[in-house]
Amino acid sequence: MTDLHETLGALRIALGDDAVLTGDTINPRHHSDWTYHQPACPAALLLPRDTAGVAAALRICNERGQSVVPQGGMTGLAGGSTPRATDIALSLQRLTGIEDIDPAAMTLTVRAGTTLENIQLAAADAGLLFPLDLGARGSCQIGGNIATNAGGNAVIRYGMTRDLVLGLEVVLADGRVLNLLNKMQKNNTGYDLKQCFIGSEGTLGVITRAVLKLVPPPGPVATMLCALPDYASAVALLRRIQRELGTPQAYEVMWQDFYRTGVSWLEKPIAPLDDSHPLFVLCDLDAPAQALEAVMEQAFEAGEALDAVQASSHAQARALWKIREATGEFPTRLKPLNFDVSVPIADIGTCVERCRARIDARWPGNRSVYFGHIGDSNLHLSVDLNSVPDADPHEIEETVFAVVGELSGSVSAEHGIGVLKKPYLHHSVTADALDAMAALKAAFDPKGILNPGKVLG
Amino acid sequence: MTDLHETLGALRIALGDDAVLTGDTINPRHHSDWTYHQPACPAALLLPRDTAGVAAALRICNERGQSVVPQGGMTGLAGGSTPRATDIALSLQRLTGIEDIDPAAMTLTVRAGTTLENIQLAAADAGLLFPLDLGARGSCQIGGNIATNAGGNAVIRYGMTRDLVLGLEVVLADGRVLNLLNKMQKNNTGYDLKQCFIGSEGTLGVITRAVLKLVPPPGPVATMLCALPDYASAVALLRRIQRELGTPQAYEVMWQDFYRTGVSWLEKPIAPLDDSHPLFVLCDLDAPAQALEAVMEQAFEAGEALDAVQASSHAQARALWKIREATGEFPTRLKPLNFDVSVPIADIGTCVERCRARIDARWPGNRSVYFGHIGDSNLHLSVDLNSVPDADPHEIEETVFAVVGELSGSVSAEHGIGVLKKPYLHHSVTADALDAMAALKAAFDPKGILNPGKVLG
Ligand SMILES: Cc1cc2nc3c(=O)[nH]c(=O)nc-3n(C[C@H](O)[C@H](O)[C@H](O)COP(=O)(O)OP(=O)(O)OC[C@H]3O[C@@H](n4cnc5c(N)ncnc54)[C@H](O)[C@@H]3O)c2cc1C
Ligand SMILES: Cc1cc2nc3c(=O)[nH]c(=O)nc-3n(C[C@H](O)[C@H](O)[C@H](O)COP(=O)(O)OP(=O)(O)OC[C@H]3O[C@@H](n4cnc5c(N)ncnc54)[C@H](O)[C@@H]3O)c2cc1C
Repeated sequence: MTDLHETLGALRIALGDDAVLTGDTINPRHHSDWTYHQPACPAALLLPRDTAGVAAALRICNERGQSVVPQGGMTGLAGGSTPRATDIALSLQRLTGIEDIDPAAMTLTVRAGTTLENIQLAAADAGLLFPLDLGARGSCQIGGNIATNAGGNAVIRYGMTRDLVLGLEVVLADGRVLNLLNKMQKNNTGYDLKQCFIGSEGTLGVITRAVLKLVPPPGPVATMLCALPDYASAVALLRRIQRELGTPQAYEVMWQDFYRTGVSWLEKPIAPLDDSHPLFVLCDLDAPAQALEAVMEQAFEAGEALDAVQASSHAQARALWKIREATGEFPTRLKPLNFDVSVPIADIGTCVERCRARIDARWPGNRSVYFGHIGDSNLHLSVDLNSVPDADPHEIEETVFAVVGELSGSVSAEHGIGVLKKPYLHHSVTADALDAMAALKAAFDPKGILNPGKVLG
Repeated sequence: MTDLHETLGALRIALGDDAVLTGDTINPRHHSDWTYHQPACPAALLLPRDTAGVAAALRICNERGQSVVPQGGMTGLAGGSTPRATDIALSLQRLTGIEDIDPAAMTLTVRAGTTLENIQLAAADAGLLFPLDLGARGSCQIGGNIATNAGGNAVIRYGMTRDLVLGLEVVLADGRVLNLLNKMQKNNTGYDLKQCFIGSEGTLGVITRAVLKLVPPPGPVATMLCALPDYASAVALLRRIQRELGTPQAYEVMWQDFYRTGVSWLEKPIAPLDDSHPLFVLCDLDAPAQALEAVMEQAFEAGEALDAVQASSHAQARALWKIREATGEFPTRLKPLNFDVSVPIADIGTCVERCRARIDARWPGNRSVYFGHIGDSNLHLSVDLNSVPDADPHEIEETVFAVVGELSGSVSAEHGIGVLKKPYLHHSVTADALDAMAALKAAFDPKGILNPGKVLG
């Protein structure tokens, strides 16, 4: 403990007393991310004010071999920002503010602790859109979004966070500051180092600044719910819409079990479409309503769609979305075991069938619902543990991840590995690839001080 | 030389005699890339048939510390695939063929030696588009495109090669095969290792297979040439078009010097627009001609555009493009010193002004032309060395790259570093970033056998 004492002394001199908290002065929100899995009060919480402060903190910790856990908005779903009692937490919360909006380049330069929502608002003020969007927008930070390569609601149209980052400033484990700020789409000057840090969950460097891509905002959006005969039709309809009208803003597939659940939980019960259909799609698209209708006529003729309703007002669109937003009530109405997996688009239907067959065989009477953003190969399923109180959640996880592995899929589509998915990583990543990741880790963080035990090791 | 002799013996046993050529049996096209800068006959040329052959070759060379130069179609413009006499060249030319087209996922899986053109044709046969396109399409290989993160004609709409790669198979320096094949847009399972190899110019691993993204083909394209009062208008008009009609397929800006040159070289002399205007834009867009006309009306009112012609037939569109394609005649009509730089979009006008002022001051009477894909921040300029026969090309390069550095730009927008741009890398990359690149190199290729002296070192 004298070691820690000495380290904290050096940190206090470098950052100031108010930037080095310990014990009860640390707000419990720094004990765990959103999962509340094995929370712990860190040995200290650092609150640097700027990049130089982050650099000084890391230099001091690296010299002493002191482990550091970078913390953003603490909304992660994989345990990535949860400290152990022996770690020092380093929060980016004071590095806030938008530094530049460049309308010509359509870029926004921002400090890493800024919330996603504040970035969205600033972009909108400039008449542009920052298209990353997810439920935690009010508290997650852009640094955390980049460190997790967050996905969210608009991936089908605009890609993952990686696709929206043009430049970064990163502090390495030893305190060196890498200036990888860049506003240019084309820049082939050596290795594109920023790619290493995107999605590295705080294990390779601390992100302090970013240059983000903005896009022109879309026009008015048409919302449609339709019923389909089978999964292949859901793919065919998506490709038809893309070909004729462009990529939709949202294309949410709900299997019958999910649709029935969503409809049954509505405050004002409506059932816009007969719930005997096997599959439903909710689609948002910035195309004229008539153009969408014309494409749907073709889809009916081709047998891809069986029935459809288009919202004729914003209120109706909201009502249709309420069915899909049943997920927001999972935590209170169910005891959900949630999965966020991906498999190649052609195989999502098979993935649902196999998972359902194996879960039903092993845990008769289970209540499970299936839904997905199939355009970006993402499938969600939730098993209600209340319906199978004796089931071992890990056994259900192994069952689902085995199917995912068989279909060359990914055990984490967007939430990352952190600590919670580490046991399952081998289903999606080969041993040689894990070794190569370890080599990358050793190259950037030779003493292993950054978020040890997360992702790897 | 006994060492080399022993190495070649081991390679012959592993790959077969016909896959290990030396001396005059090596086609001179393996002596240099397109630049013909310091060509050399390599100590041997390896022609493995498959991934296992590439792996065996690298294992043997790595054990003996023998340097290896990966070779694709040899169309590179930075000297990256040019061997030294002591290097062994490893050509991917036998690893050809498309393995899979998945219409549901809209992906194409291909072996690395396949030419870009063959991939484009296969995608078109499947009713889809592989949007990467560049002049060397008939001979460049997809492995080379990925290793250089090639740009090309459609970047403004579809991004760089990096944006079109979903998965890779890569052989590491020591012969281990990394299976990073992946068909999914969302896959957050640890570090995204494939990003390290994209754009690494053969220095970190040999690419043997790739999964590529396909897109729906665009509809009919309208072509327009217009005259603008200044650079700011070129940016404003682009953003107006994007907002109203979507991102164009091409948006090529030509400064007056370039336009006059292009027009003067036409076989059938036409001057569709008065050449006294300072700036011209050639735009391809898949929108109805009337919609484009309506947007141009707004642009005229806003003073962003001064005059415009729209092609009313494919032949007319081709005729307008002929002006821009004057670049194809540079090698025969000029002695061009070509630049491929990028700076933030807002600063491209300033970059042109500063370069022109300094070049004119230092080399009076020089003939230079400026043009660019401004939507992706890319500026080209060519100085005709015939017009200034006494000028030292390196001094002109230092002049231009200094301006680029002042504007936080990139000395290589798309062609990469190879050996030719190495002396100028410092204008765009900090010393700490260069150190981090070296650490990455050491992590994946500890003995430094892969393409030594390229990009780094
Ligand atoms: C209601 C809700 C909805 C969600 N929806 C989605 C969704 O749709 N899609 C999705 O992908 N995720 C979603 N998430 C998960 C979460 O919001 C994202 O992972 C988010 O990107 C995390 O950001 P954060 O700032 O909270 O990061 P934290 O939880 O604080 O940290 C996450 C990881 O990043 C590291 N980190 C944080 N900041 C930095 C930094 N500056 N430099 C280096 N490393 C850093 C941490 O060490 C940790 O490993 C959701 C979460 C909630 C609670
Ligand atoms: C007429 C013409 C037009 C061009 N237009 C453009 C353009 O618009 N945009 C643009 O970006 N470039 C352009 N180029 C440059 C060139 O075509 C591209 O860089 C192309 O991507 C190179 O592909 P290649 O197969 O010929 O690679 P090569 O020249 O053979 O190699 C290029 C580099 O990649 C490495 N490499 C090749 N294959 C592999 C592999 N399988 N694994 C690992 N490393 C490998 C080599 O070691 C070398 O460093 C043009 C060139 C010409 C001649």
